[in-house]
Amino acid sequence: MHIVLVHIHIKSEAVEHFKVATAENARNSIKEPGIIQFACLQQTEDPSRFTLMEVYRTPNDQLLHRETKHYQAWRDAVGEMQSEPRQGIKYQNVFPDDTEWK
Amino acid sequence: MHIVLVHIHIKSEAVEHFKVATAENARNSIKEPGIIQFACLQQTEDPSRFTLMEVYRTPNDQLLHRETKHYQAWRDAVGEMQSEPRQGIKYQNVFPDDTEWK
Repeated sequence: MHIVLVHIHIKSEAVEHFKVATAENARNSIKEPGIIQFACLQQTEDPSRFTLMEVYRTPNDQLLHRETKHYQAWRDAVGEMQSEPRQGIKYQNVFPDDTEWK
Repeated sequence: MHIVLVHIHIKSEAVEHFKVATAENARNSIKEPGIIQFACLQQTEDPSRFTLMEVYRTPNDQLLHRETKHYQAWRDAVGEMQSEPRQGIKYQNVFPDDTEWK
């Protein structure tokens, strides 16, 4: 799998709006054939910090995701909600393996 | 859900041993009734850096996990493999909700 953890810091006044916009993007993203899992996590000790876990079959599936209307609407909406640029870090799965990832 | 991302930096000579020990711990951990998902991710650009994603039903399920033999064996084995202390950060799920998390 091609996995990306995206760390996002949101202005406090935009936190609830960010959650709504990101859930909408996630609901559409999990319908993409190249996306295995798409989760949005909110830090317990600092609710202005979020991490997205995006699990793609291949790196090309991430490129296809970026061409979708739902991603582009999310990207355009959240840009001004961020208090600093978001950071994406790429990973490979050690466990579970590709066949066992649900 | 009670979700923990654990960031771990491993000495380069211990990377393969760490992957074996962590996969063994993960295989046992996903059998725990309080654990919904347990994944080990290796950074693509720096293979000495790993992130565990641990998804528990409740905070108490994390405490129960720490009492298992497989966790304690992993903890004891990886301590000296680390090049710095590991860091766990706690999260709540925004998406998907508890009923939809597979």
